[in-house]
Amino acid sequence: MKFSIKKQGKTGFARLGEISTPHGIIQTPVFMPVGTVGTVKALRQDDLKTLGAEIILGNTYHLYLRPGHELIKRRGGLHKFISWDYPILTDSGGFQVFSLGRNPQSRQVPRDEANPATRNTKLARITEEGVEFQSHVDGSKHFMRPEDSIAIQEALGADIIMAFDDCTPYPATKEEARTSMERTLRWEERSLKAKTREDQALFAIVQGGLYPELRKECLERLMEIGSRGGGCHDFSGYALGGLSVGEPIPQMYELAEYSASLLPKDKPRYLMGVGTPEDLVTCIDFGLDMFDCVMPTRNARNGTLFTETGSVAIKQAQFAEDDGPLDAQCSCLTCRNYSRAYLRHLHMSKEILSSILSSIHNLHYYLNLIKKIRLAIQDDHFDQFKKEFFNKRNQL
Amino acid sequence: MKFSIKKQGKTGFARLGEISTPHGIIQTPVFMPVGTVGTVKALRQDDLKTLGAEIILGNTYHLYLRPGHELIKRRGGLHKFISWDYPILTDSGGFQVFSLGRNPQSRQVPRDEANPATRNTKLARITEEGVEFQSHVDGSKHFMRPEDSIAIQEALGADIIMAFDDCTPYPATKEEARTSMERTLRWEERSLKAKTREDQALFAIVQGGLYPELRKECLERLMEIGSRGGGCHDFSGYALGGLSVGEPIPQMYELAEYSASLLPKDKPRYLMGVGTPEDLVTCIDFGLDMFDCVMPTRNARNGTLFTETGSVAIKQAQFAEDDGPLDAQCSCLTCRNYSRAYLRHLHMSKEILSSILSSIHNLHYYLNLIKKIRLAIQDDHFDQFKKEFFNKRNQL
Repeated sequence: MKFSIKKQGKTGFARLGEISTPHGIIQTPVFMPVGTVGTVKALRQDDLKTLGAEIILGNTYHLYLRPGHELIKRRGGLHKFISWDYPILTDSGGFQVFSLGRNPQSRQVPRDEANPATRNTKLARITEEGVEFQSHVDGSKHFMRPEDSIAIQEALGADIIMAFDDCTPYPATKEEARTSMERTLRWEERSLKAKTREDQALFAIVQGGLYPELRKECLERLMEIGSRGGGCHDFSGYALGGLSVGEPIPQMYELAEYSASLLPKDKPRYLMGVGTPEDLVTCIDFGLDMFDCVMPTRNARNGTLFTETGSVAIKQAQFAEDDGPLDAQCSCLTCRNYSRAYLRHLHMSKEILSSILSSIHNLHYYLNLIKKIRLAIQDDHFDQFKKEFFNKRNQL
Repeated sequence: MKFSIKKQGKTGFARLGEISTPHGIIQTPVFMPVGTVGTVKALRQDDLKTLGAEIILGNTYHLYLRPGHELIKRRGGLHKFISWDYPILTDSGGFQVFSLGRNPQSRQVPRDEANPATRNTKLARITEEGVEFQSHVDGSKHFMRPEDSIAIQEALGADIIMAFDDCTPYPATKEEARTSMERTLRWEERSLKAKTREDQALFAIVQGGLYPELRKECLERLMEIGSRGGGCHDFSGYALGGLSVGEPIPQMYELAEYSASLLPKDKPRYLMGVGTPEDLVTCIDFGLDMFDCVMPTRNARNGTLFTETGSVAIKQAQFAEDDGPLDAQCSCLTCRNYSRAYLRHLHMSKEILSSILSSIHNLHYYLNLIKKIRLAIQDDHFDQFKKEFFNKRNQL
């Protein structure tokens, strides 16, 4: 993997870059649609190409459980299995273990008193060695160590893989955040050591909760671990993990901005699991390059659609007899061909076509937003773009 | 609407025809995908065009309940509402009233002793005037007379509309079948009289259960009713109703063949709700021209896929590691791009893409089968085609 910066914006920290992977080039800033179990929900792979997706995400946790990484490896890897010949990034599975354990009850699950460093959640049990968890599919028990996560990701064969981290929950005391960060550092070092494939790029994940000094320390120590690895055993990029997990947005922005300012300039910077269109515009200005989120497709299935002036709940009665397109400015297949009235009808009738047309629109919105941001950075008017972007939303 | 016969096969009764409608020409024999509530499930309208669908079906019952025919009329009709500028046929709603009432309990519902001509089913109550039924969506009560069905279909604005009939259940005694047939005749005459739009073609529906003499009588009396209407108030085509409702297949074939032999040669002949690929090949040979069935799309969603050698349950373990396409001979988007292993994985994971890719394949199979049949009739080897078609299936 190679990363090069094509342009550094004159104001703010937004930048244009290019990541070369074995499956093609990615322009940054980039938004990566999430293909949880090997499909970006409700979309075909040719739709993704038409929409301009340059890279998609696969979830290690889900693919490991179903259909299994060994099966995918025997199919020639994830690209071949899902018929997607463009770049793929897989996460490490760490976040899913955390998020599946994250529910109201999980916070009441008693700690392992004998070992305060062991955190119990409803579905997962985190120890120094790794994570014991139950499958959400069939309840079967599994144990995933950093070495397993890397082995699974090598079997899947994505272009970019992620180190196995302990995703710090929110809220967390500083002591909890440090414990989680220290574990993350040990796990990421083990991830780096476990890596064998030279055609895959491994990204490190910075944890540290909402504590700037922990974020700084975590990054510095990760860079130290990476440099000890040397060459192709260094980390190829840095991600910010444990954000957008329930904390107030201003705090997320504060942490993202501060962390971005510390991240190495010559490597891609990936803000994991983020976010809303507003989040993207804001965080690209901090100098972050890569984003992923289920929001465009999940919201589509729930009938929440993105437009320039904000998001719209298509079920509203006002749309029942509205013959106009969802967004008159939008050039997506949905807006070019179908009315709000029809989209509302499909949503109310729980028709599959509702998910399809809404996912096409929402993903087009996200990918088109990123394209417009790139153009704005290129033309040195990202500042103005950002101002207009937020103005349109405030007009409502 | 104009119908012309382009070719009468040399052996058997299969024929090639052409139906001109305000929204374009339909080649017959034709298979009409079912778009229940204004969408052929899991497919976009551009997919239907790509697949070569020439006409789709809309269900009056469903569209009346949701979003309502008046709303659709205000949108400019069903074509505009769903963005489908090609021919549409709507059924009369009679069958849905019947089929929604057709369940195990419904057969035990006591008759209205005071009026043996009144049949009660679980959801519907049939009287001379029309049908009282409860919405399956919200339980609200409705009453539909033949005049209402026609008014609804005129509001929807399909190119071809259907007379309101009393779909005779299976099994039915000869007395029950006659009562139902007599009611059907009165209702269809009322349907014809209620019709006001001259740009829509009205088809009659022949009932009579599994009794050939009733079928014959019903048809003759319908033709008499039609000829009394005169000109544009005659029936433009004849359909066979009340078949494929649970009776043994050989009996269905026997009735279809006999009825087809009686139907006027110069009008389209439509076998409603039929059927399997085998049914189509068999019944086209009887001289039937039009077919509709939810089977290709419903089976797709259930993971049953059609191939030249029969249907395949994609969930079978043998496909888990099968990298080949579902059908190596098939040129559909699904078979050109995706493996059986991936299709199985999507099905097992209950992913929307499973319904999408399977519906594309199954509908392609049906529409392509019809194309091949047309070519075979054109080239005077439909007999041979039919033999080979059944041979391939028997090889399994």
